Amino acid sequence: MRRGLYIGRFQPYHLGHHTVIRQISADVDELIIAIGSAQRSHEPDNPFTAGERVLMVTRALSELCVKHYAIPVEDIQRNVLWASHVISMVPPFDVVYSNNPLVTRLFREAVVPVEHSPLFKRKEYSGTEIRRRMLSGEEWEHLVPGSVAAIINEVGGVERLRAVAAQDK
Amino acid sequence: MRRGLYIGRFQPYHLGHHTVIRQISADVDELIIAIGSAQRSHEPDNPFTAGERVLMVTRALSELCVKHYAIPVEDIQRNVLWASHVISMVPPFDVVYSNNPLVTRLFREAVVPVEHSPLFKRKEYSGTEIRRRMLSGEEWEHLVPGSVAAIINEVGGVERLRAVAAQDK
Amino acid sequence: MRRGLYIGRFQPYHLGHHTVIRQISADVDELIIAIGSAQRSHEPDNPFTAGERVLMVTRALSELCVKHYAIPVEDIQRNVLWASHVISMVPPFDVVYSNNPLVTRLFREAVVPVEHSPLFKRKEYSGTEIRRRMLSGEEWEHLVPGSVAAIINEVGGVERLRAVAAQDK
Amino acid sequence: MRRGLYIGRFQPYHLGHHTVIRQISADVDELIIAIGSAQRSHEPDNPFTAGERVLMVTRALSELCVKHYAIPVEDIQRNVLWASHVISMVPPFDVVYSNNPLVTRLFREAVVPVEHSPLFKRKEYSGTEIRRRMLSGEEWEHLVPGSVAAIINEVGGVERLRAVAAQDK
Amino acid sequence: MRRGLYIGRFQPYHLGHHTVIRQISADVDELIIAIGSAQRSHEPDNPFTAGERVLMVTRALSELCVKHYAIPVEDIQRNVLWASHVISMVPPFDVVYSNNPLVTRLFREAVVPVEHSPLFKRKEYSGTEIRRRMLSGEEWEHLVPGSVAAIINEVGGVERLRAVAAQDK
Amino acid sequence: MRRGLYIGRFQPYHLGHHTVIRQISADVDELIIAIGSAQRSHEPDNPFTAGERVLMVTRALSELCVKHYAIPVEDIQRNVLWASHVISMVPPFDVVYSNNPLVTRLFREAVVPVEHSPLFKRKEYSGTEIRRRMLSGEEWEHLVPGSVAAIINEVGGVERLRAVAAQDK
Repeated sequence: MRRGLYIGRFQPYHLGHHTVIRQISADVDELIIAIGSAQRSHEPDNPFTAGERVLMVTRALSELCVKHYAIPVEDIQRNVLWASHVISMVPPFDVVYSNNPLVTRLFREAVVPVEHSPLFKRKEYSGTEIRRRMLSGEEWEHLVPGSVAAIINEVGGVERLRAVAAQDK
Repeated sequence: MRRGLYIGRFQPYHLGHHTVIRQISADVDELIIAIGSAQRSHEPDNPFTAGERVLMVTRALSELCVKHYAIPVEDIQRNVLWASHVISMVPPFDVVYSNNPLVTRLFREAVVPVEHSPLFKRKEYSGTEIRRRMLSGEEWEHLVPGSVAAIINEVGGVERLRAVAAQDK
Repeated sequence: MRRGLYIGRFQPYHLGHHTVIRQISADVDELIIAIGSAQRSHEPDNPFTAGERVLMVTRALSELCVKHYAIPVEDIQRNVLWASHVISMVPPFDVVYSNNPLVTRLFREAVVPVEHSPLFKRKEYSGTEIRRRMLSGEEWEHLVPGSVAAIINEVGGVERLRAVAAQDK
Repeated sequence: MRRGLYIGRFQPYHLGHHTVIRQISADVDELIIAIGSAQRSHEPDNPFTAGERVLMVTRALSELCVKHYAIPVEDIQRNVLWASHVISMVPPFDVVYSNNPLVTRLFREAVVPVEHSPLFKRKEYSGTEIRRRMLSGEEWEHLVPGSVAAIINEVGGVERLRAVAAQDK
Repeated sequence: MRRGLYIGRFQPYHLGHHTVIRQISADVDELIIAIGSAQRSHEPDNPFTAGERVLMVTRALSELCVKHYAIPVEDIQRNVLWASHVISMVPPFDVVYSNNPLVTRLFREAVVPVEHSPLFKRKEYSGTEIRRRMLSGEEWEHLVPGSVAAIINEVGGVERLRAVAAQDK
Repeated sequence: MRRGLYIGRFQPYHLGHHTVIRQISADVDELIIAIGSAQRSHEPDNPFTAGERVLMVTRALSELCVKHYAIPVEDIQRNVLWASHVISMVPPFDVVYSNNPLVTRLFREAVVPVEHSPLFKRKEYSGTEIRRRMLSGEEWEHLVPGSVAAIINEVGGVERLRAVAAQDK
């Protein structure tokens, strides 16, 4: 049994994440999706609550057939403890998939194996780009799974993002 | 679609929880299990990590056929904000199942419907009693699902409980 | 101009507080009432929110003719910083009135003058006794100012206390 | 009886706030002034302590004849809980006055009525502009009520701002 | 080069600690003394500040000829992260000396070698006993190094302990 | 006996610090080095742990003959309490040496004497410049004491800084 860990903020979950997770899921029996900065929401860079992101991940992954866990993880504010904090919040795992140099470094210092996660078009499929499109009124639904677009619309996500981003002006 | 919420610390998950959840699951389409005091572990009253408890819940519920979410929730230290905090960490839900007067009160003040959860033999099936038995060397495995006993043994849970409880003397 | 400081948790504000404050108010031009442990509520020993306690203090003091400030102060969790924390949260003052040895000590270490506050029947007029009476269904209204009893009844304070105290069993 | 809530950081309280509050006070019987980011002081953007700001608000409002409460509120660091946190720290109220899109959004999600607050010349009467003038040695006293200018001078506010702003270079 | 770690709260540093450290110091080239619960002071069980305890440890160890580090470490409130937290706050070390089952367990889970620390008369030389004697007016100076007694007297430690312990009544 | 306090983040300890400390040490009998932002590490501006910085300071100062204390101090997040917090974490001292306007201000408000610390070439000897050089592959060892360069190399400091700085892109 091989269990993998993939970490993101998922603000929102998009097709870049989806592509990566689909590929990773071929290599593992079970996959843990850790939802970082769980305590943040209603901010321009973090519009969605942890609960909404759990729902996005769960719905999107129901299309794949890998057994998965969607686990919110709050920030710990101390990088040196971050990997141990994540480890304590999720079921035991064998490998982390990440291309993020800090994530890679922190898990390797904690003696956890890290493998490169598959690449995808980062410029197109990115939370920043999707939030920018939501704010400017451009199309964004084609950048996320259909089930995620439905959740965002149900919770009034675009309207909320505009309200919290207006705050910054 | 009806989604229910059930909250516990699950130190450890036992047959009392299991009986209740089996009954609740007949009333809902999806069930959220919130794992409280997620940040606590390695204490006499809270020996297991959130991740271990996610695993216990997930394994035990795999025997049932209800769709479920096992979500760790850290303490917020302010009762007046607790219900809102839980709500933000889990997918939207329609009803909370609880017999705990404080939980009931806090959710009702937050205008969330609460229903009584089914009863079980609280004296026999209780985390306190199971931890007492683990410390004194008595039988405890018959009080938890088999899959949970296996997890506790794998992580050396009894040995850990004894180490952290010895601390108190 | 002489400004005094009086500190309490006011769970709830009672006639003991009222007697003391009436006497202190003869010595000062302005009186600051700091409402301690402001973040606590919905607990057996701390049933009322800071906002409810601000209202109790303000209503009760409107009968007196001293200019006053009712200021909630959250706990700081470090005794060595507590006096400085209180000082930063309230307008400048000339003297603290207290019979509490720890409060007296911490302000004196911060070089703030402390005077003994007037005595009252501590056994009869005490938050602990009033909460005990609320729980057991005994009379309690005669131990608090009429305006405070009205606030407690409006917010359903007795019912709330019973719910949060039941939690402890 | 109608009680309104107005929120600001008041770094410092200025004539823009004063104009708004004077107009709001015609619509309510009692007015709560919540002083946000109460724990911040001695920073370039937040030079004054909560206690100093309570004094500014109280002195300035003594010219008006509305009954008011000046209440410091510490940050909660989680937007999703912020409205509930404010609600718990102040007496019960009927309406929030705000033009801030985030404040408006967060209170509306908490099912609290929000009304637009009256407009004033935001560019001229702004904390940012007043602090800039204090730093550059320009006139600023005409932008705040006389009683507030007196408090700032008493506590050495301009000198303090210069010391803490110098830090940033 | 072998560097050892010894952890205590040192409320106050006493001859039990001193005996143990003298023996450990024969086994190491350098010794780190971690002063736990550094943020606590002015409490019945924690009367002394971290700074005062640093001074006690440093003065007492100046009689020994081992190179040492006296490092205050604040609590982290999560046992699962505690060993990593301590490790990050002190220079790298080769071994922990402890008889405390929880400390032993937490460092062993962090893959740090732990050795039993030498025994001493725990009943006689204990912080609890010394604080009890200070409160009751009995002799206590013979239970601590002379340099530590001098520091306690200089800072008015006994008077402070009595003030903060009176609080509890 | 005169004891002085010098505060820095020491990311890393460099020859600018060393020059200053050498001069200060001529004026005092004992010198406390407070290592600020102790809880930060593995960040682009704060690559080193508190423990590593304690080691840097201790090694570098072993060349000087002043008695010293190297004490990590975590951030307190409230400027108004910062000086009291530092005071509680270190042994009693007579004077602070600083040219930082905020540090000077905060200690003077706490009625602690502050003296100007000696000047050095700030542009050349600066943590920012040294970290920039580490990232760009330029020489940096000549800007720190030899013993500090050795520690940085032992812990793989340059490699770590590159990993955590890459994160920001």
